[in-house]
Amino acid sequence: MDNNTMYEYERAIEESRDKIFELLEEKKYFQCRDELLEYNAVDIAELLEEVMEEYDMAKAVMLFRTLPKDVSVDVFAYLAVDDQVEIINCITDPEIRYIIDELDFDDMIDVLEELPANLVDKILEKTPKAERRLINTFLKYKEDSAGSLMTPDYINLHKNWSAKEALEHIKEVGMDSETIYTCYVLDSGRKLTGIVSLRALVLADDQIRVSDLMHEDYVAAHVDDDQEEISELFKKYGYLAIPVVDTEGRLVGIVTVDDILDVIEEETTEDMERMGGVIDSNDKDYLDMSVFAHVKARLPWLLLLMCSYFITGGIIASFEEALSAVIVLVTYMPMLMGTGGNSGTQASTLVICGMATGELELGDFLKVAWKEIRIGIFIGICLSIINYTRIVYLDHEAPMIALTVCCAMVVIVIIAKLIGSLLPMLAKKIGWDPALMSGPMMASITDMISLCTYFAMAGLFLHI
Amino acid sequence: MDNNTMYEYERAIEESRDKIFELLEEKKYFQCRDELLEYNAVDIAELLEEVMEEYDMAKAVMLFRTLPKDVSVDVFAYLAVDDQVEIINCITDPEIRYIIDELDFDDMIDVLEELPANLVDKILEKTPKAERRLINTFLKYKEDSAGSLMTPDYINLHKNWSAKEALEHIKEVGMDSETIYTCYVLDSGRKLTGIVSLRALVLADDQIRVSDLMHEDYVAAHVDDDQEEISELFKKYGYLAIPVVDTEGRLVGIVTVDDILDVIEEETTEDMERMGGVIDSNDKDYLDMSVFAHVKARLPWLLLLMCSYFITGGIIASFEEALSAVIVLVTYMPMLMGTGGNSGTQASTLVICGMATGELELGDFLKVAWKEIRIGIFIGICLSIINYTRIVYLDHEAPMIALTVCCAMVVIVIIAKLIGSLLPMLAKKIGWDPALMSGPMMASITDMISLCTYFAMAGLFLHI
Repeated sequence: MDNNTMYEYERAIEESRDKIFELLEEKKYFQCRDELLEYNAVDIAELLEEVMEEYDMAKAVMLFRTLPKDVSVDVFAYLAVDDQVEIINCITDPEIRYIIDELDFDDMIDVLEELPANLVDKILEKTPKAERRLINTFLKYKEDSAGSLMTPDYINLHKNWSAKEALEHIKEVGMDSETIYTCYVLDSGRKLTGIVSLRALVLADDQIRVSDLMHEDYVAAHVDDDQEEISELFKKYGYLAIPVVDTEGRLVGIVTVDDILDVIEEETTEDMERMGGVIDSNDKDYLDMSVFAHVKARLPWLLLLMCSYFITGGIIASFEEALSAVIVLVTYMPMLMGTGGNSGTQASTLVICGMATGELELGDFLKVAWKEIRIGIFIGICLSIINYTRIVYLDHEAPMIALTVCCAMVVIVIIAKLIGSLLPMLAKKIGWDPALMSGPMMASITDMISLCTYFAMAGLFLHI
Repeated sequence: MDNNTMYEYERAIEESRDKIFELLEEKKYFQCRDELLEYNAVDIAELLEEVMEEYDMAKAVMLFRTLPKDVSVDVFAYLAVDDQVEIINCITDPEIRYIIDELDFDDMIDVLEELPANLVDKILEKTPKAERRLINTFLKYKEDSAGSLMTPDYINLHKNWSAKEALEHIKEVGMDSETIYTCYVLDSGRKLTGIVSLRALVLADDQIRVSDLMHEDYVAAHVDDDQEEISELFKKYGYLAIPVVDTEGRLVGIVTVDDILDVIEEETTEDMERMGGVIDSNDKDYLDMSVFAHVKARLPWLLLLMCSYFITGGIIASFEEALSAVIVLVTYMPMLMGTGGNSGTQASTLVICGMATGELELGDFLKVAWKEIRIGIFIGICLSIINYTRIVYLDHEAPMIALTVCCAMVVIVIIAKLIGSLLPMLAKKIGWDPALMSGPMMASITDMISLCTYFAMAGLFLHI
């Protein structure tokens, strides 16, 4: 390719895709392979997935098997888990063993986690005992923990080595290491004593010792730490890799930044889903989830929230008589409930984002409350002025009706802002995910508050 | 520190914070400085910001000036923009010049962008002409474009060099480069011809030529590309740096992964805010925004959505007579509207996330619609069964009332799911941000649909 900007690259991939489909139609697997080999392993994996989904699984596996061995391992690593399992089920045992052996350690663990236990046992049958023990340790780490993200393939340097000796050592063992850009210095008990970057080693004079180049003020994660906290560390310090230690401070693995980009995407999706009232889809793709899986992710929340509306309904029922006396009040009900919900959602969104970026802390709740009260008063009054004008001059209703609606509006907006900002903080305090306290949940809560306020105001101004 | 897991590190910082406040009280600046110097530049910056916000700006500047010069530059780079400007305003011109000169190029540009033009001119007065021209070019790149993220400090290798020669060159010039882990090979016209990783150079035999180690199937960004697209490239390929080229294919800079982590955070916050009905806070912190800034970010949406409720109100008003005849219908109104909104928000959230991760494409809209219809039917029926039981056996209402509510429920859930899933796709099609079509916006739209459906069903079953 002459010019590799992303658009041209994407267009080229699109064209190849169509070509590959045509070639597969004619069963020209080797021409197809040559077309694929024009690209990066990530893109080959993507093209292969399209063949699997939109064309034919058997042909996709056939195509996969035509790839040169080293490329096939890289491509395999980038496939979605379901597709990996699909391929494993279609290829021979020696092929499986080759792939498993050649995969990076952390990718291998990810694959093994998804396979049925008997298949894993079969694959590991011929693995040396020491490695099998290590694999089993890794398989036991909790999902979404530092342990499940890390790889044990890091470079271990001796602090008395010179920069030159260190570089020679890296040259020797670097091929099997996940990254060579950050290296680790351990003491005799395998306790981490410092980290040294390849940058420092390459730029230093040959004779300078590792101990003079290493940093001792590094930050490490514990194997049980949650992946969300790990990604905070990467964001804060801009590291390329973070060491993971066990309870005794011994280095057991490292997490690299490329794996963290996936974690951030996963965590973001989880947060957004919770804010949208969906139970975690567990990182499954929308189209890959069955109708039933979608129902399972959505029905419980809808049911719970619907039950909250039984209470709302009860509130209305108890004011039924008053309402039929002044039926026009019903006209303004959706607006008050809707504005209450929207005001609350705005506040909760900002607070949830603020807590997610680490800017807002629980201790700030008084500052937040005071800010929201002032914002609520200001916004409530603005909205009320418009409403008063509209109700009296456009709808030609009595001023007392307008007053009821407007006073309710101010109170509702203030309360909704307060609740919207404080509930996520409360959720965090008791260990829940703040993201649960937004969107649908917020709307349900503010609906009840809006109705009660509205009827209270009606009682006050209209004596009903 | 003996053990650097993040909790212990955080606790140590907390303790130092209190100690620093005490020491500042007694004006012991140098002891304070020694306390700060225990930490990483990122943490020093954070501690300094706390002093600025919670204690005293003048004392914070004083403390900043006691830092060793090289540390002070690093710390300055990590401060929030407002605080950087604050410091610039309090220190002498030579101090400003020193910091500006020593900052990484991309950090310097970020600072200069925030300063008033006359101050920038003054700072750049003594800068050599060539560098000033480069700085001015960079200052002109659009905000949030690849150009505004990149740095021109990359390493340029010759393709005929051996690995050894390349490493010697890197040793010579690497100190001033943003990263040395990815190096670039240019032709005589400064066009990018390949990239080579430091890993490949270090692991290769001394005599192997750069041209044999370099990759030509790299992906580059264009200076005008949006930062969101750049972050997609990083996520997809797991690169540590991406080259940025101009329209002629000449390499003008590189973007590194540490800067992308910030971009991802920014973009996520923007998406969440839009989904929560807040106008972009422009990356400002919640507490740093004034009450008025908050009102400005929230009032327009609330106003717009409130106006949509004028229509909802109109719909109710036209059914006022029917409603006062069967006032009990009002009791079930909030539930139907709420469930409609929640159903729509769930669907839009999943579709927005699916599009954000690149899994769903516009071409999938028929698949999505068909899936949502089936999900809607299933969920609608489940919710209706519960409602029918409740209305007839608990509320003791007539079966026809229950039938009205239940049929409305099924239709509302299906329509809401359909609209919720398709509107974000439509938004994307016409070039809007899909995130706008969620939460509050979705609730307003589904409220109207819910009411119309409800009244239509009431007409059908109750003949009102």
